[in-house]
Amino acid sequence: MNIHVLTRKEDIEEAQLVRGSKIAVAVDVLLATTTIAACLEKGAVQVIPAATREEALKHAASLPDDSYILAGEEQARSIEGFVYPGPVHLAARARGKTIILMTTNGTAALWKLQNAEEVYAGSLLNARALAFVLAAKPEEATLLITAAGNAGDISLEDMYGAGCLIDAVLKEKTCTLTDAARTALSVYENGPNARHVLASSRVGKKLLAYNMDKDLDYASTVNSSTAVCRYINTGISK
Amino acid sequence: MNIHVLTRKEDIEEAQLVRGSKIAVAVDVLLATTTIAACLEKGAVQVIPAATREEALKHAASLPDDSYILAGEEQARSIEGFVYPGPVHLAARARGKTIILMTTNGTAALWKLQNAEEVYAGSLLNARALAFVLAAKPEEATLLITAAGNAGDISLEDMYGAGCLIDAVLKEKTCTLTDAARTALSVYENGPNARHVLASSRVGKKLLAYNMDKDLDYASTVNSSTAVCRYINTGISK
Repeated sequence: MNIHVLTRKEDIEEAQLVRGSKIAVAVDVLLATTTIAACLEKGAVQVIPAATREEALKHAASLPDDSYILAGEEQARSIEGFVYPGPVHLAARARGKTIILMTTNGTAALWKLQNAEEVYAGSLLNARALAFVLAAKPEEATLLITAAGNAGDISLEDMYGAGCLIDAVLKEKTCTLTDAARTALSVYENGPNARHVLASSRVGKKLLAYNMDKDLDYASTVNSSTAVCRYINTGISK
Repeated sequence: MNIHVLTRKEDIEEAQLVRGSKIAVAVDVLLATTTIAACLEKGAVQVIPAATREEALKHAASLPDDSYILAGEEQARSIEGFVYPGPVHLAARARGKTIILMTTNGTAALWKLQNAEEVYAGSLLNARALAFVLAAKPEEATLLITAAGNAGDISLEDMYGAGCLIDAVLKEKTCTLTDAARTALSVYENGPNARHVLASSRVGKKLLAYNMDKDLDYASTVNSSTAVCRYINTGISK
Protein backbone atom coordinates (compact mmCIF):
# COMPACT_ATOMS: atom_id res chain seq x y z
CA MET A 1 0.00 0.00 0.00
CA ASN A 2 1.21 3.48 -0.89
CA ILE A 3 0.80 6.27 1.63
CA HIS A 4 0.83 9.94 0.63
CA VAL A 5 0.15 13.08 2.67
CA LEU A 6 -1.32 16.36 1.46
CA THR A 7 -0.07 19.08 3.79
CA ARG A 8 -3.07 21.42 3.40
CA LYS A 9 -6.72 20.99 2.44
CA GLU A 10 -6.07 23.49 -0.40
CA ASP A 11 -3.93 20.82 -2.11
CA ILE A 12 -6.82 18.37 -2.54
CA GLU A 13 -7.52 17.86 -6.25
CA GLU A 14 -10.84 16.33 -7.29
CA ALA A 15 -9.31 14.67 -10.37
CA GLN A 16 -6.66 12.96 -8.22
CA LEU A 17 -9.29 11.45 -5.90
CA VAL A 18 -11.07 9.40 -8.51
CA ARG A 19 -7.87 8.07 -10.13
CA GLY A 20 -7.13 4.50 -8.97
CA SER A 21 -8.33 3.33 -5.59
CA LYS A 22 -7.95 6.21 -3.11
CA ILE A 23 -8.74 5.75 0.57
CA ALA A 24 -8.84 9.28 1.98
CA VAL A 25 -8.42 10.41 5.57
CA ALA A 26 -8.86 14.00 6.79
CA VAL A 27 -6.84 14.94 9.88
CA ASP A 28 -7.67 18.15 11.75
CA VAL A 29 -6.45 17.44 15.26
CA LEU A 30 -7.40 20.89 16.63
CA LEU A 31 -10.27 20.33 16.61
CA ALA A 32 -12.69 19.07 13.94
CA THR A 33 -11.71 15.43 13.51
CA THR A 34 -11.03 15.11 17.24
CA THR A 35 -14.52 16.47 17.87
CA ILE A 36 -16.00 13.94 15.42
CA ALA A 37 -14.27 10.99 17.14
CA ALA A 38 -15.27 12.36 20.55
CA CYS A 39 -18.96 12.72 19.63
CA LEU A 40 -19.16 9.24 18.06
CA GLU A 41 -17.23 7.75 21.01
CA LYS A 42 -19.79 9.28 23.39
CA GLY A 43 -22.76 7.87 21.51
CA ALA A 44 -23.72 10.37 18.80
CA VAL A 45 -25.78 8.71 16.04
CA GLN A 46 -23.74 10.39 13.29
CA VAL A 47 -21.85 13.58 12.47
CA ILE A 48 -22.84 15.47 9.33
CA PRO A 49 -20.00 17.71 8.10
CA ALA A 50 -21.24 20.90 6.46
CA ALA A 51 -19.18 23.12 4.18
CA THR A 52 -21.19 26.29 4.79
CA ARG A 53 -23.53 27.81 7.35
CA GLU A 54 -26.42 27.57 4.87
CA GLU A 55 -25.78 23.87 4.27
CA ALA A 56 -25.69 23.24 8.02
CA LEU A 57 -29.04 25.00 8.48
CA LYS A 58 -30.53 23.01 5.58
CA HIS A 59 -29.50 19.72 7.24
CA ALA A 60 -31.02 20.96 10.49
CA ALA A 61 -34.32 21.84 8.79
CA SER A 62 -34.60 18.26 7.46
CA LEU A 63 -34.30 16.67 10.93
CA PRO A 64 -36.79 16.42 13.80
CA ASP A 65 -36.31 18.98 16.59
CA ASP A 66 -34.24 17.69 19.51
CA SER A 67 -32.66 14.99 17.31
CA TYR A 68 -29.66 17.12 16.42
CA ILE A 69 -27.09 19.61 17.67
CA LEU A 70 -25.93 22.39 15.35
CA ALA A 71 -22.22 22.99 16.05
CA GLY A 72 -19.58 25.06 14.34
CA GLU A 73 -16.99 27.79 14.16
CA GLU A 74 -15.68 30.16 11.49
CA GLN A 75 -11.96 31.05 11.74
CA ALA A 76 -12.12 29.76 15.35
CA ARG A 77 -14.91 32.26 16.18
CA SER A 78 -18.36 31.32 17.55
CA ILE A 79 -21.35 31.42 15.18
CA GLU A 80 -24.71 32.64 16.49
CA GLY A 81 -27.10 29.73 16.95
CA PHE A 82 -24.26 27.13 16.79
CA VAL A 83 -22.69 25.31 19.74
CA TYR A 84 -18.91 25.90 19.81
CA PRO A 85 -17.34 22.60 18.66
CA GLY A 86 -14.88 22.00 21.48
CA PRO A 87 -14.81 18.19 21.81
CA VAL A 88 -15.16 17.98 25.60
CA HIS A 89 -18.19 20.21 25.87
CA LEU A 90 -19.93 18.99 22.70
CA ALA A 91 -19.34 15.25 23.20
CA ALA A 92 -20.87 15.40 26.68
CA ARG A 93 -24.19 16.32 25.05
CA ALA A 94 -23.89 14.08 21.98
CA ARG A 95 -25.49 10.76 23.03
CA GLY A 96 -28.35 9.78 20.72
CA LYS A 97 -28.01 12.95 18.65
CA THR A 98 -27.01 13.80 15.10
CA ILE A 99 -24.25 16.41 15.19
CA ILE A 100 -24.27 18.88 12.30
CA LEU A 101 -20.73 20.21 12.26
CA MET A 102 -19.26 23.12 10.34
CA THR A 103 -15.60 24.06 10.85
CA THR A 104 -13.06 26.15 8.93
CA ASN A 105 -10.59 23.41 8.03
CA GLY A 106 -11.55 19.89 9.07
CA THR A 107 -15.08 19.57 7.74
CA ALA A 108 -14.07 21.57 4.66
CA ALA A 109 -11.35 18.95 4.02
CA LEU A 110 -13.82 16.07 4.51
CA TRP A 111 -16.23 17.73 2.16
CA LYS A 112 -13.55 18.14 -0.53
CA LEU A 113 -12.48 14.48 -0.13
CA GLN A 114 -15.93 12.97 -0.58
CA ASN A 115 -15.33 11.63 -4.11
CA ALA A 116 -12.58 9.27 -2.95
CA GLU A 117 -13.46 5.57 -2.78
CA GLU A 118 -13.67 5.68 1.01
CA VAL A 119 -13.35 8.66 3.35
CA TYR A 120 -12.49 8.71 7.07
CA ALA A 121 -11.89 11.28 9.80
CA GLY A 122 -8.62 10.65 11.64
CA SER A 123 -7.25 12.09 14.87
CA LEU A 124 -4.87 11.08 17.65
CA LEU A 125 -7.89 9.61 19.46
CA ASN A 126 -8.75 7.01 16.84
CA ALA A 127 -5.37 6.47 15.10
CA ARG A 128 -4.99 2.82 16.09
CA ALA A 129 -8.67 1.93 15.52
CA LEU A 130 -8.55 3.55 12.08
CA ALA A 131 -5.18 1.95 11.24
CA PHE A 132 -6.63 -1.55 11.73
CA VAL A 133 -9.30 -0.78 9.13
CA LEU A 134 -6.91 0.93 6.71
CA ALA A 135 -4.29 -1.81 6.88
CA ALA A 136 -6.94 -4.31 5.71
CA LYS A 137 -7.49 -2.44 2.42
CA PRO A 138 -6.21 -3.98 -0.84
CA GLU A 139 -2.51 -3.73 -1.58
CA GLU A 140 -3.14 -1.61 -4.69
CA ALA A 141 -5.06 1.06 -2.77
CA THR A 142 -3.42 4.41 -2.02
CA LEU A 143 -3.90 5.86 1.43
CA LEU A 144 -4.21 9.62 0.95
CA ILE A 145 -4.02 11.46 4.26
CA THR A 146 -4.88 15.16 4.24
CA ALA A 147 -3.38 17.15 7.09
CA ALA A 148 -6.04 19.86 6.92
CA GLY A 149 -3.78 22.76 7.93
CA ASN A 150 -4.84 26.24 8.84
CA ALA A 151 -5.93 28.79 6.24
CA GLY A 152 -3.49 27.58 3.58
CA ASP A 153 -0.59 26.95 5.96
CA ILE A 154 0.76 23.67 7.30
CA SER A 155 -0.38 22.86 10.85
CA LEU A 156 2.19 21.15 13.03
CA GLU A 157 -0.47 19.19 14.92
CA ASP A 158 -2.05 17.88 11.71
CA MET A 159 1.33 16.73 10.38
CA TYR A 160 1.88 15.07 13.77
CA GLY A 161 -1.57 13.45 13.57
CA ALA A 162 -0.92 12.21 10.02
CA GLY A 163 2.41 10.79 11.22
CA CYS A 164 0.73 9.09 14.18
CA LEU A 165 -1.73 7.40 11.83
CA ILE A 166 1.06 6.32 9.45
CA ASP A 167 3.02 4.90 12.37
CA ALA A 168 -0.05 2.90 13.45
CA VAL A 169 -0.63 1.56 9.90
CA LEU A 170 3.07 0.58 9.60
CA LYS A 171 2.67 -1.50 12.78
CA GLU A 172 0.11 -3.57 10.83
CA LYS A 173 1.74 -3.83 7.41
CA THR A 174 4.65 -2.74 5.24
CA CYS A 175 3.83 0.28 3.07
CA THR A 176 5.58 2.55 0.56
CA LEU A 177 5.77 6.15 1.76
CA THR A 178 6.10 9.28 -0.35
CA ASP A 179 8.43 12.05 0.83
CA ALA A 180 5.43 13.95 2.22
CA ALA A 181 4.37 10.85 4.21
CA ARG A 182 7.95 10.45 5.49
CA THR A 183 7.94 14.10 6.54
CA ALA A 184 4.76 13.58 8.59
CA LEU A 185 6.14 10.39 10.12
CA SER A 186 9.34 12.23 11.09
CA VAL A 187 7.32 14.90 12.91
CA TYR A 188 5.51 12.17 14.86
CA GLU A 189 8.64 10.16 15.61
CA ASN A 190 10.45 13.27 16.81
CA GLY A 191 7.61 14.54 19.02
CA PRO A 192 8.42 14.06 22.70
CA ASN A 193 4.74 13.73 23.57
CA ALA A 194 1.45 14.65 21.93
CA ARG A 195 0.39 17.24 24.52
CA HIS A 196 3.71 19.05 24.17
CA VAL A 197 3.56 19.14 20.36
CA LEU A 198 -0.08 20.28 20.28
CA ALA A 199 0.61 23.02 22.84
CA SER A 200 3.53 24.34 20.77
CA SER A 201 1.53 24.60 17.53
CA ARG A 202 -0.01 27.84 16.31
CA VAL A 203 -3.61 26.72 16.88
CA GLY A 204 -2.67 25.04 20.16
CA LYS A 205 -1.29 28.32 21.53
CA LYS A 206 -4.54 30.04 20.55
CA LEU A 207 -6.62 27.42 22.35
CA LEU A 208 -4.54 27.83 25.50
CA ALA A 209 -5.00 31.60 25.28
CA TYR A 210 -8.79 30.96 25.10
CA ASN A 211 -8.57 28.72 28.23
CA MET A 212 -9.41 25.62 26.18
CA ASP A 213 -6.82 23.53 28.03
CA LYS A 214 -9.23 20.65 28.52
CA ASP A 215 -9.91 20.38 24.77
CA LEU A 216 -6.19 20.42 24.06
CA ASP A 217 -5.59 17.73 26.70
CA TYR A 218 -8.38 15.63 25.22
CA ALA A 219 -7.12 16.03 21.64
CA SER A 220 -3.74 14.67 22.87
CA THR A 221 -5.12 11.36 24.17
CA VAL A 222 -3.64 8.99 21.58
CA ASN A 223 -5.71 5.84 20.93
CA SER A 224 -8.40 6.69 23.47
CA SER A 225 -11.26 5.99 21.03
CA THR A 226 -12.36 3.01 18.95
CA ALA A 227 -14.52 5.17 16.66
CA VAL A 228 -13.46 4.48 13.06
CA CYS A 229 -15.34 7.58 11.76
CA ARG A 230 -16.25 6.61 8.23
CA TYR A 231 -17.93 9.21 6.02
CA ILE A 232 -20.66 7.67 3.82
CA ASN A 233 -23.17 9.76 1.88
CA THR A 234 -23.87 12.75 4.11
CA GLY A 235 -22.86 11.40 7.49
CA ILE A 236 -19.90 10.09 9.51
CA SER A 237 -20.61 7.17 11.80
CA LYS A 238 -18.65 4.86 14.06
CA MET B 1 13.60 36.84 14.16
CA ASN B 2 10.72 34.92 12.61
CA ILE B 3 11.48 31.82 10.58
CA HIS B 4 9.04 30.39 8.04
CA VAL B 5 9.41 27.54 5.56
CA LEU B 6 7.75 27.19 2.18
CA THR B 7 7.54 23.49 1.40
CA ARG B 8 7.69 23.80 -2.42
CA LYS B 9 9.01 26.40 -4.85
CA GLU B 10 5.46 26.63 -6.27
CA ASP B 11 4.38 28.31 -3.00
CA ILE B 12 6.67 31.33 -3.49
CA GLU B 13 4.53 34.46 -3.91
CA GLU B 14 6.16 37.57 -5.36
CA ALA B 15 3.90 39.89 -3.32
CA GLN B 16 4.94 38.17 -0.08
CA LEU B 17 8.66 38.67 -0.81
CA VAL B 18 8.59 42.45 -0.89
CA ARG B 19 6.43 42.81 2.24
CA GLY B 20 8.56 43.70 5.29
CA SER B 21 12.17 42.60 5.43
CA LYS B 22 12.45 39.11 3.92
CA ILE B 23 15.75 37.25 3.90
CA ALA B 24 15.18 34.34 1.53
CA VAL B 25 17.07 31.04 1.32
CA ALA B 26 16.50 28.39 -1.35
CA VAL B 27 17.31 24.81 -0.31
CA ASP B 28 17.60 22.10 -2.97
CA VAL B 29 19.89 19.54 -1.36
CA LEU B 30 19.76 17.11 -4.32
CA LEU B 31 21.46 18.76 -6.04
CA ALA B 32 21.30 22.41 -7.12
CA THR B 33 22.17 24.32 -3.94
CA THR B 34 24.71 21.65 -2.98
CA THR B 35 26.28 22.07 -6.41
CA ILE B 36 26.41 25.86 -5.93
CA ALA B 37 28.16 25.56 -2.55
CA ALA B 38 30.53 22.92 -3.97
CA CYS B 39 31.54 25.06 -6.96
CA LEU B 40 32.12 28.19 -4.85
CA GLU B 41 33.99 26.14 -2.24
CA LYS B 42 36.30 24.83 -4.97
CA GLY B 43 37.07 28.30 -6.31
CA ALA B 44 34.42 29.16 -8.90
CA VAL B 45 34.21 32.94 -9.45
CA GLN B 46 30.41 32.92 -9.32
CA VAL B 47 27.38 30.79 -10.15
CA ILE B 48 24.71 32.31 -12.38
CA PRO B 49 21.36 30.56 -11.92
CA ALA B 50 19.29 30.46 -15.11
CA ALA B 51 15.56 29.79 -15.28
CA THR B 52 15.54 28.52 -18.86
CA ARG B 53 17.88 27.00 -21.43
CA GLU B 54 17.65 30.18 -23.53
CA GLU B 55 18.59 32.37 -20.60
CA ALA B 56 21.57 30.13 -19.84
CA LEU B 57 22.79 30.38 -23.45
CA LYS B 58 22.34 34.17 -23.36
CA HIS B 59 24.56 34.41 -20.28
CA ALA B 60 27.13 32.20 -22.00
CA ALA B 61 27.13 34.40 -25.10
CA SER B 62 27.99 37.46 -22.98
CA LEU B 63 31.09 35.85 -21.44
CA PRO B 64 34.55 35.19 -22.90
CA ASP B 65 35.13 31.61 -24.08
CA ASP B 66 36.85 29.39 -21.49
CA SER B 67 35.69 31.69 -18.67
CA TYR B 68 32.53 29.72 -17.98
CA ILE B 69 30.99 26.27 -17.71
CA LEU B 70 27.44 25.73 -18.90
CA ALA B 71 25.81 23.19 -16.59
CA GLY B 72 22.27 21.96 -16.18
CA GLU B 73 19.56 19.32 -16.15
CA GLU B 74 15.86 19.19 -17.00
CA GLN B 75 13.76 16.79 -14.87
CA ALA B 76 17.07 15.14 -13.88
CA ARG B 77 17.92 14.45 -17.55
CA SER B 78 21.06 15.64 -19.32
CA ILE B 79 20.82 18.59 -21.72
CA GLU B 80 22.89 18.56 -24.91
CA GLY B 81 25.77 21.00 -24.63
CA PHE B 82 25.44 21.28 -20.82
CA VAL B 83 27.65 19.57 -18.22
CA TYR B 84 25.52 17.44 -15.87
CA PRO B 85 25.42 19.37 -12.57
CA GLY B 86 26.51 16.64 -10.16
CA PRO B 87 28.50 18.54 -7.50
CA VAL B 88 31.55 16.25 -7.36
CA HIS B 89 32.23 16.20 -11.08
CA LEU B 90 31.36 19.86 -11.72
CA ALA B 91 33.15 21.37 -8.71
CA ALA B 92 36.39 19.62 -9.69
CA ARG B 93 36.44 21.75 -12.86
CA ALA B 94 35.10 24.97 -11.32
CA ARG B 95 38.21 26.87 -10.16
CA GLY B 96 38.40 30.33 -11.74
CA LYS B 97 35.27 29.79 -13.79
CA THR B 98 31.78 31.26 -13.89
CA ILE B 99 29.26 28.45 -13.65
CA ILE B 100 26.02 29.02 -15.52
CA LEU B 101 23.59 26.65 -13.87
CA MET B 102 20.09 25.63 -14.90
CA THR B 103 18.18 23.05 -12.83
CA THR B 104 14.54 22.01 -12.53
CA ASN B 105 13.89 23.01 -8.94
CA GLY B 106 16.78 24.75 -7.16
CA THR B 107 17.74 27.47 -9.62
CA ALA B 108 14.06 27.98 -10.45
CA ALA B 109 13.44 28.62 -6.74
CA LEU B 110 16.37 31.06 -6.55
CA TRP B 111 15.10 32.85 -9.61
CA LYS B 112 11.60 33.21 -8.10
CA LEU B 113 13.05 34.52 -4.81
CA GLN B 114 15.18 37.27 -6.33
CA ASN B 115 12.92 40.16 -5.22
CA ALA B 116 13.48 39.43 -1.53
CA GLU B 117 15.76 41.82 0.36
CA GLU B 118 18.58 39.27 0.39
CA VAL B 119 18.73 35.83 -1.23
CA TYR B 120 20.99 32.87 -0.39
CA ALA B 121 21.49 29.28 -1.52
CA GLY B 122 21.47 26.86 1.43
CA SER B 123 22.47 23.21 1.68
CA LEU B 124 23.77 20.80 4.27
CA LEU B 125 27.29 21.79 3.21
CA ASN B 126 27.02 25.46 4.18
CA ALA B 127 24.31 25.37 6.89
CA ARG B 128 26.55 26.60 9.71
CA ALA B 129 28.37 29.19 7.59
CA LEU B 130 25.06 30.56 6.34
CA ALA B 131 23.50 30.47 9.82
CA PHE B 132 26.22 32.80 11.18
CA VAL B 133 25.30 35.37 8.53
CA LEU B 134 21.53 34.93 8.94
CA ALA B 135 21.62 35.16 12.73
CA ALA B 136 23.26 38.60 12.43
CA LYS B 137 20.28 40.05 10.52
CA PRO B 138 17.99 42.54 12.28
CA GLU B 139 15.46 41.19 14.77
CA GLU B 140 12.52 42.40 12.63
CA ALA B 141 13.65 40.46 9.54
CA THR B 142 11.81 37.29 8.52
CA LEU B 143 13.90 34.36 7.42
CA LEU B 144 11.96 32.69 4.61
CA ILE B 145 13.41 29.30 3.73
CA THR B 146 12.11 27.63 0.58
CA ALA B 147 12.50 23.85 0.51
CA ALA B 148 12.45 23.67 -3.29
CA GLY B 149 10.72 20.29 -3.54
CA ASN B 150 10.30 18.18 -6.61
CA ALA B 151 7.75 19.02 -9.33
CA GLY B 152 5.16 20.38 -6.90
CA ASP B 153 5.72 17.79 -4.19
CA ILE B 154 7.55 18.10 -0.88
CA SER B 155 11.09 16.67 -0.92
CA LEU B 156 12.18 14.97 2.27
CA GLU B 157 15.82 16.01 1.79
CA ASP B 158 14.89 19.68 1.31
CA MET B 159 12.75 19.68 4.47
CA TYR B 160 15.70 18.04 6.23
CA GLY B 161 18.05 20.70 4.81
CA ALA B 162 15.70 23.52 5.87
CA GLY B 163 15.56 21.96 9.35
CA CYS B 164 19.35 21.68 9.49
CA LEU B 165 19.66 25.39 8.69
CA ILE B 166 17.03 26.33 11.30
CA ASP B 167 18.84 24.23 13.89
CA ALA B 168 22.08 26.07 13.09
CA VAL B 169 20.41 29.50 13.32
CA LEU B 170 18.80 28.55 16.66
CA LYS B 171 22.27 27.74 18.01
CA GLU B 172 23.12 31.44 17.42
CA LYS B 173 19.92 33.16 18.54
CA THR B 174 16.37 32.68 19.77
CA CYS B 175 13.79 32.81 16.96
CA THR B 176 10.03 32.42 16.52
CA LEU B 177 9.14 29.47 14.30
CA THR B 178 5.96 28.99 12.27
CA ASP B 179 4.38 25.53 12.16
CA ALA B 180 6.02 24.89 8.78
CA ALA B 181 9.42 25.78 10.25
CA ARG B 182 8.76 23.48 13.23
CA THR B 183 7.83 20.71 10.82
CA ALA B 184 11.17 21.08 8.98
CA LEU B 185 13.07 21.22 12.27
CA SER B 186 11.32 18.02 13.42
CA VAL B 187 12.42 16.22 10.26
CA TYR B 188 16.02 17.26 10.93
CA GLU B 189 15.92 16.44 14.63
CA ASN B 190 14.44 13.02 13.92
CA GLY B 191 16.90 12.12 11.16
CA PRO B 192 19.42 9.50 12.31
CA ASN B 193 22.05 10.83 9.91
CA ALA B 194 22.06 12.93 6.78
CA ARG B 195 23.27 10.19 4.40
CA HIS B 196 20.52 7.86 5.58
CA VAL B 197 17.78 10.49 5.15
CA LEU B 198 19.00 11.57 1.72
CA ALA B 199 19.25 7.96 0.53
CA SER B 200 15.66 7.27 1.62
CA SER B 201 14.19 10.26 -0.24
CA ARG B 202 12.57 9.96 -3.66
CA VAL B 203 15.32 11.87 -5.48
CA GLY B 204 18.02 10.15 -3.41
CA LYS B 205 16.80 6.74 -4.54
CA LYS B 206 16.92 7.92 -8.16
CA LEU B 207 20.50 9.15 -7.77
CA LEU B 208 21.56 5.81 -6.30
CA ALA B 209 19.88 4.03 -9.22
CA TYR B 210 21.96 6.27 -11.56
CA ASN B 211 25.15 5.31 -9.67
CA MET B 212 25.54 8.84 -8.32
CA ASP B 213 26.54 7.57 -4.86
CA LYS B 214 29.44 10.01 -4.63
CA ASP B 215 27.20 13.01 -5.22
CA LEU B 216 24.78 11.75 -2.58
CA ASP B 217 27.64 11.21 -0.12
CA TYR B 218 28.97 14.68 -0.83
CA ALA B 219 25.52 16.32 -0.43
CA SER B 220 25.35 14.67 3.03
CA THR B 221 28.53 16.31 4.38
CA VAL B 222 27.00 18.74 6.89
CA ASN B 223 29.03 21.94 7.46
CA SER B 224 31.84 20.95 5.10
CA SER B 225 31.82 24.34 3.32
CA THR B 226 32.24 27.96 4.42
CA ALA B 227 30.66 29.30 1.20
CA VAL B 228 27.83 31.65 2.19
CA CYS B 229 26.38 31.64 -1.37
CA ARG B 230 24.71 35.04 -1.64
CA TYR B 231 22.73 35.84 -4.77
CA ILE B 232 23.22 39.47 -5.88
CA ASN B 233 22.10 40.79 -9.26
CA THR B 234 22.69 37.89 -11.66
CA GLY B 235 25.28 35.88 -9.75
CA ILE B 236 25.85 33.89 -6.57
CA SER B 237 29.23 34.30 -4.94
CA LYS B 238 30.95 33.17 -1.78
